[in-house]
Amino acid sequence: MSRFSLRTAFPRTPNPLSQAVAERHARGLPLLDLAETNPTRVGLPSPDVDLGAIPDPFLYAPEPFGLPSAREAVAAHLCQRGAPVDAAHVVLSASTSEAYGWLLKLLCDPGDTVLVPAPGYPLVDVLARLEGVHARPYRLPGVHGFGLDAGQVEAAVDARTRAVVVVNPGNPTGHFLHDGELHALADVCARHGLALISDEVFSDFAWDAEAGRVTSVAGRPLPCLTFSLSGLSKVAGLPGLKLAWMHVGGPAHARDEALARLEDVADAALSVATPVQLALPALLAHAPRFQEALLERVKGNRERLIQARPEDAAWDVVPAHGGWSAVLRIPHHPGEEATCLRLLEEGVRVQPGYFYDFGGGAYLVLSLLPTPEVFTAALVPLVRVLSPPAGR
Amino acid sequence: MSRFSLRTAFPRTPNPLSQAVAERHARGLPLLDLAETNPTRVGLPSPDVDLGAIPDPFLYAPEPFGLPSAREAVAAHLCQRGAPVDAAHVVLSASTSEAYGWLLKLLCDPGDTVLVPAPGYPLVDVLARLEGVHARPYRLPGVHGFGLDAGQVEAAVDARTRAVVVVNPGNPTGHFLHDGELHALADVCARHGLALISDEVFSDFAWDAEAGRVTSVAGRPLPCLTFSLSGLSKVAGLPGLKLAWMHVGGPAHARDEALARLEDVADAALSVATPVQLALPALLAHAPRFQEALLERVKGNRERLIQARPEDAAWDVVPAHGGWSAVLRIPHHPGEEATCLRLLEEGVRVQPGYFYDFGGGAYLVLSLLPTPEVFTAALVPLVRVLSPPAGR
Repeated sequence: MSRFSLRTAFPRTPNPLSQAVAERHARGLPLLDLAETNPTRVGLPSPDVDLGAIPDPFLYAPEPFGLPSAREAVAAHLCQRGAPVDAAHVVLSASTSEAYGWLLKLLCDPGDTVLVPAPGYPLVDVLARLEGVHARPYRLPGVHGFGLDAGQVEAAVDARTRAVVVVNPGNPTGHFLHDGELHALADVCARHGLALISDEVFSDFAWDAEAGRVTSVAGRPLPCLTFSLSGLSKVAGLPGLKLAWMHVGGPAHARDEALARLEDVADAALSVATPVQLALPALLAHAPRFQEALLERVKGNRERLIQARPEDAAWDVVPAHGGWSAVLRIPHHPGEEATCLRLLEEGVRVQPGYFYDFGGGAYLVLSLLPTPEVFTAALVPLVRVLSPPAGR
Repeated sequence: MSRFSLRTAFPRTPNPLSQAVAERHARGLPLLDLAETNPTRVGLPSPDVDLGAIPDPFLYAPEPFGLPSAREAVAAHLCQRGAPVDAAHVVLSASTSEAYGWLLKLLCDPGDTVLVPAPGYPLVDVLARLEGVHARPYRLPGVHGFGLDAGQVEAAVDARTRAVVVVNPGNPTGHFLHDGELHALADVCARHGLALISDEVFSDFAWDAEAGRVTSVAGRPLPCLTFSLSGLSKVAGLPGLKLAWMHVGGPAHARDEALARLEDVADAALSVATPVQLALPALLAHAPRFQEALLERVKGNRERLIQARPEDAAWDVVPAHGGWSAVLRIPHHPGEEATCLRLLEEGVRVQPGYFYDFGGGAYLVLSLLPTPEVFTAALVPLVRVLSPPAGR
C-alpha cells in the first residue's frame, strides 16, 4: 500500500472547459486560441544568437548564485532599466517558480502563510502548497481597476504571515504599483516583519506612461526585505532557456542574512545550465527587439478589441496599463463557464475569470499575444456571443 | 525585524579545514586537491557536440516531464544498459537534487521521515530539511565493507517513515547492491508501505565484475514503488548542463498515481532548458567515451594508491567496487581532522570521514579523479603523514 503526501493531493476533476478543448482537438477542429501565452508560438522575433559560439560550454563551475559574468549581465540590465543594483545581490535560478520555491523555504516553515493577490495567476498557491505553506489571498479591489490597496493586505496579516507577494503589473489585470501604494505596502511589511516579494516579470510591458509608476522595487531604499523577480521567459520571450533572476534588497543586515541562507538553498540546487548563463549577455541584448515587437502586438490587439466593442454592449474591457492580457467584464448571465463553452463551439478559446479567482462579477481573460489575423478572426464570434442581438 | 525559517537555519560555524584551505588560497600556495570531484576540471574528454547545430533551440513546448524526444533518448540509454523501460515512465529534471526535492514532496508531508544511508554524501539531509522532512540515517555496516543490511533499514523504520534512499554504488564507499539485498530491501519497503529511491548516478562506474550485482532498479518487477535517479552530471561528466532523469517503477497502480502527482509537481517547475533537451541524444552518445576515460583514470589512481601503501602500514584502503572515490581507514590517533590539517600543511587536500558520517572509526576520503601527475605527487606526503617512521 503506497502512501502519498497531502501536499500533492491536488484535485484532478476534469474541468468542463479543458474537456471541451480536448474534444475539439480529438475531432481535428481548428481553434482560434486566445489562451495562448507562449511567446515562441505567435510569430514574434527569436534571438539571432549562435549557441555554438559559446566558448567552453561544457566547463563547469558550481556557483550557487550563478556565474559572476551572468550575474553582472543581470545587474547591468536592471541598471539600464533604472534600478541601480549590485551584482552581489543578484541570484540566478532556473525559473521564477524556482525562485518562489527558494523564498518560501527561506521565509516560511511549514504552516506559515504568504499573502497573494486575488485576482492573480494561480501559481504561487500551488508552489506554496508544495512547500507546506498556506497562500492566503488579499483582494485587489475591482473598483480601483484591480490596483493594490495596502489596507486589504494588512487586513489579511496574521501571526503566521511571513511575506506578501505583489505582481507588478498584475497578471492578468495589468495594473502597475505606484509610489504611494508601494510605500504604504512597505510600511505594512516593516511593521509586521514581513518580506515583500515583487514579481516583475511583466514590468517591461507598459502600454503607456503614468506618473509615479513603480517598475521595480530593486534598488529602492525600503524599510523591509525585498525580493524582485524576473527572467528571460518574459523579458526576452525565452521561456525554454530556463534562466530567471531575483534581486535581494532592503535593510543591509536582513538582506545579508537572506543572501547567506539563500546561498545554502541555491547550493543544494545549482539548477541553471552553464551554456545559457554564458549566452546571457547576448540573450539580454535581444530583449529590446522582442519587447518592441511584443508591445506593438499587444497594443494593436487591444485596440482591435476596443474598436470591435459595440457602444451599447453589456460587456466592458477592464482598464489596464500593461502586460500580455485583456480582461473583459461580462454579464452575470449566462456567466463565465457558459460563455467560454459557447465561444468554444464557435472555435474561440478564452479563459474564465474563476481561473484567476476574480471573486465577485463575471470575467473573461484574453491573451493579447496571438497574431493580428488570429485575433481579428476571433473577435467576430466573440462580439456575437457577448453581444446577442437586442430583443433576445 | 525580519524573520527567517528554521528550515534554513543551517549552522554557519566555519570548519577548521575549509578555513585552512581558504588561508592557503589567500597565501597563493599550491594545492594537490584530492577533494576535486568536478569531472570537467581534471583533463577528461569533453563532448564534441555543437550546440549551434540544434534546430529551433528557442522554440518552447511546456512539457512537465520533458520533451518526448529527450525522454525517449533516456529510455533508449537505460535499455542499452539492460533496464527495459518505457519512456512514459521517465521524468526529466534539472538535477538529481531537484528530483529528490520532487520525491520528498510527493511522498512526505512536513514532519515525515526518509531513511538515508550512513556513511553517505550529505546532500539528501539538506534537501529533506528544506522540504520540512526528517532524514534519519540507517547504518551501512563497516564489517560488510559498507554494503547494505536490510535489517538495519527495517530497524530505522517508524510510523512517519515514507521512503528509503539507497545510493548504488555507495558514495563514497563504492559498494554495489546485490540481488539478495535488493529483494530483502524491497520486501521491507512493501511491508511498511515505503517507496524505494535508488540513486544510481555512479552505477556506470564499476571497477570489476561481480555476480548478482544490481546496476539499476529500473525495469525490475519489485513489490514497492521505485524511483531510479541518474543524470548527465555523472553519466556523461556534464554537471553544467543540468539534465537529470528518474524512472518510476513498481506496482502499476501506485506507479501511475505517482506519475500523475509528479506531473503536477513538475508542471510547477518546468526546469530543464530546451536546447539541452534537444542536444540530449548527442550528449548521451558522448557518455561511453567519457566513462572509458574516467574508469581508466580512477582505476589507475586506485592502483597507485594501493601500490604506495607500505606493507606494514597502520592504514588501509577500504575494499570497494566502483565510483569515483577511495576510502582510507586510518588510526584513531591523531584522527581525521588532525590528519587532514597535517596533510594540508604538506599541500594535499583530502576529506575527513566525518563529512560523510562514517560513525565509528577514523576515515579519509580521496577523489580518484585528479590527473595521474597530481595524484602521484600527492601520494608522497600522504604516505609520509599516514605512515610515520617506526619508533615515533
